[in-house]
Amino acid sequence: MAGRRATVDAVTGWIEQHVACLEAEPIALARAVGRVAATDVTTTVRMPPVDRAAIDGVALRAGETVGASSYNPLAFALASADVPLPPGSAVTVAAGAPLPAGADAVVPLDQVELSGDGRCALVEPIGVGSDVERAGSQIAPGDRLVPAGRRIDAYHIGVLTVVGIEHVTVIRQPRVRVVSITPPAGAPDTNRPLLEALLARDGARVEAIEVARARDALAQALATDRSDLVLVIGGTGPGRDDIARAALAAAGEVAIDGVAVRQCETACVGRTRSGIPVFLLPGMPAACLWAYELVAGGAVRRRAGGSTALPFAARPMTTARKIASIIGVTDVCPVRCRADDKVEPIASFAEAGLAAAIQADGFVIVPAGSEGYARDSAVMVYLLRPWTGQ
Amino acid sequence: MAGRRATVDAVTGWIEQHVACLEAEPIALARAVGRVAATDVTTTVRMPPVDRAAIDGVALRAGETVGASSYNPLAFALASADVPLPPGSAVTVAAGAPLPAGADAVVPLDQVELSGDGRCALVEPIGVGSDVERAGSQIAPGDRLVPAGRRIDAYHIGVLTVVGIEHVTVIRQPRVRVVSITPPAGAPDTNRPLLEALLARDGARVEAIEVARARDALAQALATDRSDLVLVIGGTGPGRDDIARAALAAAGEVAIDGVAVRQCETACVGRTRSGIPVFLLPGMPAACLWAYELVAGGAVRRRAGGSTALPFAARPMTTARKIASIIGVTDVCPVRCRADDKVEPIASFAEAGLAAAIQADGFVIVPAGSEGYARDSAVMVYLLRPWTGQ
Repeated sequence: MAGRRATVDAVTGWIEQHVACLEAEPIALARAVGRVAATDVTTTVRMPPVDRAAIDGVALRAGETVGASSYNPLAFALASADVPLPPGSAVTVAAGAPLPAGADAVVPLDQVELSGDGRCALVEPIGVGSDVERAGSQIAPGDRLVPAGRRIDAYHIGVLTVVGIEHVTVIRQPRVRVVSITPPAGAPDTNRPLLEALLARDGARVEAIEVARARDALAQALATDRSDLVLVIGGTGPGRDDIARAALAAAGEVAIDGVAVRQCETACVGRTRSGIPVFLLPGMPAACLWAYELVAGGAVRRRAGGSTALPFAARPMTTARKIASIIGVTDVCPVRCRADDKVEPIASFAEAGLAAAIQADGFVIVPAGSEGYARDSAVMVYLLRPWTGQ
Repeated sequence: MAGRRATVDAVTGWIEQHVACLEAEPIALARAVGRVAATDVTTTVRMPPVDRAAIDGVALRAGETVGASSYNPLAFALASADVPLPPGSAVTVAAGAPLPAGADAVVPLDQVELSGDGRCALVEPIGVGSDVERAGSQIAPGDRLVPAGRRIDAYHIGVLTVVGIEHVTVIRQPRVRVVSITPPAGAPDTNRPLLEALLARDGARVEAIEVARARDALAQALATDRSDLVLVIGGTGPGRDDIARAALAAAGEVAIDGVAVRQCETACVGRTRSGIPVFLLPGMPAACLWAYELVAGGAVRRRAGGSTALPFAARPMTTARKIASIIGVTDVCPVRCRADDKVEPIASFAEAGLAAAIQADGFVIVPAGSEGYARDSAVMVYLLRPWTGQ
């Protein structure tokens, strides 16, 4: 039985083969934070547009400062900034001002002696390009400002604003249908708010939430679905009331029947006849969470234009104690992070249920072939929230 | 001059002394993602409410299985689940079902021989508590589900839903007023969209955006302000048009005049006479960004109930090349992360402007007293976006 379950890698492979990114749409830059760029965003702008002064000072030709010293101050006539720089001259410039034609360096004001007679003197030489911001040194025409597939953040907004880009092309947000099987009539499915929050995090919108009680009704709902992805919660077990797998088989195809992830063994993956991806998640809260995170979430993020990779920062740390795991299934082991960069395992999701997710700072994934990690092992910790070591 | 500028630690100290967290307000759980808990959220619920079966099987008294073996199968009468378990009996239970009174272990179905005559047989003994989910093992009355000051995420939503909490008390979102000085009349301030996105990330709302041209008008606007925090962009330099500092002095107090962060040296911190925190940020985009991230952002997050700490995951990595920095100021050095867990410095914010923020995977902070890091040094990298090492 365990041998027939698909590994996480096999599920990811299926998703990358069968779940496509949605189409692109234009959006105003002001509303683009969190959306995924559909194409590379490039610019035709040069920043700075011309060579300019990086500081307040005097602009001049560096070559003319050779030999300046306190024993041999070199004098320069102060010229106008509006004409090409005459030989032997300097021009006072403010930070950010264009260099006059001919100038190739800027001397800081406090290293210049300004005399009252329209001249200034230098007591040391200066190098070419000193305190000059070169044209195009920040941004050059053709620069890629956002790569396709990147989630747009505040910094992108800042740079795109600077170069005058007001609209970007992003991937449409997936509309996800959530169908609950587990709750008795009238009772709310406690998994729904969790899934809605996870879907929002991954850039999707919940289009419809329904409760299905009968296999034929669920099959009918799946067969006629027009959303971008469907999550079915509960009813994945082998019991008589477990209608999810049979309904998916009737409405399309069960491509992956069982996943080798602890507690998530009954999760299934498939498609409707019209090709809409369907994920069957177990109804027990911790199982529902990890079936989403390790199985369905990658498809949601891919549909939204992103990557199937887990959306967490990872940090290499060391085990303060042994992390025990079950062989044969991928196991998600919750841990607490310590200031000495070690992690301590806490009660597992099997023992503590969903509560483990709020007690943990992060988690370690133990592959199916491993029984866990001995004390003092190097492990990769996926951080559930920012952890800076303090 | 450099000696008079405040260190980042001194600014953080001022913020922690003078910038208070806002008041609490109730909110529906469905709208609480991203908000900061005002108080510890605790529960009166026990999960599971009673001891229950972790798997499908038969519940019985573990003590009665002692001595069972394939040479000595022990038989149990199958009893009803609705009454206390009679001695010598067992009850078939589904996963999640309460144990009958008296039972203390569950034997998996595939380890039991069910005969047709209302009896079952065991061929090995079982331990007390085996495959039993203990009452309260997941959540016990009094458990703290969200600590005060924690930003509520999808996992909190899941657990709070499970225990039936529908409302939580969170810190009110700060209303932040943004005033631009830099742009000439009619031109938009390109820093504004950046700041709006950063403020949204830190849990604040932009209440009003204005342009101030004259010192007295700005001082008047600050003196009569009723927002929770004010950001003034530009006009922080020593020039004649640099009205920000004088206006703040007229409207209240300049508490910190200059910050020892590279490019952000002219940033100032103070308060209006009615005590509203005011941050003066330099107008150059990269300087505005880092004056926000290292100076103002901590105050915004603190106002919103969070911590002054940087809102990034940090990861210890190694320098692939030397990171050079200027002594005397804290320097933010952008880096790219490599798959071998090394980081390479890229063109600095002084050289590449705001564009460095979108070319980088993260940044290293070099303290004022350091000239940087040699090759192969251990450094802490603040990750601008999730980085998992692939």
